[in-house]
Amino acid sequence: MTVRVLVVGIGSGDPAHLTGEAVAALNAVDVFLVADKREATRDLVTLRAELCAAVVTHDRYRFVEVPDPERGPDAQRGSAGYAAAVRDWHAERARRHADAIRAEVGDDGTVGFLVWGDPSLYDSTLRVVETITEQLAASGVEVEVTVVPGISSVTLLAARHRTALNRVGQPVHLTTGRRLVEEYDPALGDVVVMLDGDLACAGLVEAHPDLQIFWGAQLGLPDEALVAGRLADVLPAIRDRRAAVRAARGWVMDTYLLRPG
Amino acid sequence: MTVRVLVVGIGSGDPAHLTGEAVAALNAVDVFLVADKREATRDLVTLRAELCAAVVTHDRYRFVEVPDPERGPDAQRGSAGYAAAVRDWHAERARRHADAIRAEVGDDGTVGFLVWGDPSLYDSTLRVVETITEQLAASGVEVEVTVVPGISSVTLLAARHRTALNRVGQPVHLTTGRRLVEEYDPALGDVVVMLDGDLACAGLVEAHPDLQIFWGAQLGLPDEALVAGRLADVLPAIRDRRAAVRAARGWVMDTYLLRPG
Ligand SMILES: C[S@@+](CC[C@H](N)C(=O)[O-])C[C@H]1O[C@@H](n2cnc3c(N)ncnc32)[C@H](O)[C@@H]1O
Ligand SMILES: C[S@@+](CC[C@H](N)C(=O)[O-])C[C@H]1O[C@@H](n2cnc3c(N)ncnc32)[C@H](O)[C@@H]1O
Repeated sequence: MTVRVLVVGIGSGDPAHLTGEAVAALNAVDVFLVADKREATRDLVTLRAELCAAVVTHDRYRFVEVPDPERGPDAQRGSAGYAAAVRDWHAERARRHADAIRAEVGDDGTVGFLVWGDPSLYDSTLRVVETITEQLAASGVEVEVTVVPGISSVTLLAARHRTALNRVGQPVHLTTGRRLVEEYDPALGDVVVMLDGDLACAGLVEAHPDLQIFWGAQLGLPDEALVAGRLADVLPAIRDRRAAVRAARGWVMDTYLLRPG
Repeated sequence: MTVRVLVVGIGSGDPAHLTGEAVAALNAVDVFLVADKREATRDLVTLRAELCAAVVTHDRYRFVEVPDPERGPDAQRGSAGYAAAVRDWHAERARRHADAIRAEVGDDGTVGFLVWGDPSLYDSTLRVVETITEQLAASGVEVEVTVVPGISSVTLLAARHRTALNRVGQPVHLTTGRRLVEEYDPALGDVVVMLDGDLACAGLVEAHPDLQIFWGAQLGLPDEALVAGRLADVLPAIRDRRAAVRAARGWVMDTYLLRPG
C-alpha cells in the first residue's frame, strides 16, 4: 500500500496568499488530518475549513480529527522526566495519526496536513510526519511526502511594513519570545521574534532604547494590526492594540522585527 | 499625479509558486521596470518575461529597461570614498527610475518591480523604491507602494529537504557567505547561508566536522540540484554538482542550511 502525504503551507488565512501549487495540492487531498483543538483555537479550525471551501473545486474531501494525547504531569517543562515524557507523547501522537491513515485512507490515497504560514518555521508537522512515515513503513505502508511552501507570517510582516528583514549585507536572526532577552545582541542583525505571548521585547528597552520595532498581529486576517517606531516610544501603543485585538477576537497572534537604531 | 508601485515577490521562476495575490498584481501592472542586465543574467530576464507571459491575461503591459549607472572606482569595496560613492550611485539609480516613471507612466498608472523569491530577503528593490518615492514626491508625484510577499529560496530549500529551518524552540540565523566563517557559532541555531559565491562553509569543516548541510541550487528551476548530509562527507559532492550546474547553465544560484550535528 502507498499513501501520499502533502504538507501544505497555507499562509495567513487570506486565500490570495495561497500559491498555485498549494491550491492544486488542496484539490488533490482526500483526507485532511487535523489535530483536535481546544476551544481557544476553534476559530482557526473554522478558518481552515473556509479556506478549503474557497479553493477546492470538488466535494470528495473530508476533515478527520485526530485528538492529541493528554500531556501527563511529566510532559510539563521543568519536570525531571521531561525529555522522556515528551518523546512518549510525540510517539503516541504519531501513532494516532498512523492509525487514522490506516483507517481512513485507501491505497493510493492522499492525506493533507494544513500548516499556517510556511511549514519550515516553528511548526511540528514535519517532525510528526517523519515519525508517522517510520511507523507506517514498519507495517508495510509506503509514504511519499511532498512539502508545499507557503507565505510565512515573517514574510507577511515585512511586506506589510514595506521593509526588508536585513540591512545591506547584514544577518537576520529568528528567535522566540522565551529566548529573546537572554540572546539579544545587536551583532545578530535584525531580529524577528515569534511565539511571544507577552512582548518579551519590553525587557530590552532599558539596555537598547534606540531599537526600532515593526510589529504585526493577525497578519492577513480582517483584524490585522500594525505598529512601527522606536520601541521605547511605541511599546504602550502596541500593548493597547494587542489587548484590543485579544478582547475582540478571543486570541491574538503577533510577531515583530527588532532593528538596531 | 498619483502612481501605484507594486513590488512583487515572484518566487523561484516556477509559475506554480506565485500566489493568487501576485498573479493579480502582475495583471494590474502597466509598466514593469527592469534594471539592465549584464550578459550573465540575461537568462533570468528571459525567465521573468516568460513568467509574465504565463500568467498575465492581457497584452497591455510592457517592460522598460532602466540601465544601472556605472560603478566608479570609488564604489568598489575597500576604497576610501566607498560609503559616499555607494550613496551617490544609489541616488543616481533611483533618479533614473524616477525619470523612467515620469516618462513612461501616466496619472493613475501602475508600475511593477519583479523580485526573485521574496522582497524581504537580500534584495535592494524596497530601498530603491523608497528613494524613488522621495524623489517623485519632491516633484509632486504621489506614490502608493504595495509589497506582495513571495516564496523565498530559503522557504523552498526547506520544503525540498522536507525539513524545518529550526530545531524545536531553537533560533534560526540567516547570513551571507562573506560573513559565515567569522560569525559562525552553534549557539546561533540552524544557519541559512545566501549570497555565497564559493561555498564558504568549507571553512567550517575542520572546527565543526559534525555539521549537517542541506544544500540546493537553482531551486524551482528545471536544473534544480539538492544534496544533504554530513558537511565533511558531502562537500565534494556539492562542489561537483555546483560545477556541473554552472557548466551546463552558465551560472549557478545556491543556498544552504547548516545544522549542528
Ligand atoms: C507555531 S508558530 C507558526 C509559524 C508559521 N509556521 C508561519 O510560518 O508563520 C506561531 C507563531 O507565528 C506567528 N504568527 C503566526 N500567524 C500569525 C499572524 N497571522 N500574524 C502574526 N503572527 C503570526 C506568531 O509569532 C505565532 O506565535
Ligand atoms: C540577492 S539574493 C535574493 C534572495 C531572494 N530575494 C529570495 O527571497 O530568495 C540572491 C541569493 O538568493 C539565493 N537564491 C536565489 N534564488 C535561488 C534559487 N533559485 N536557488 C537557490 N538559491 C537561490 C542564493 O543564495 C543567491 O545568492
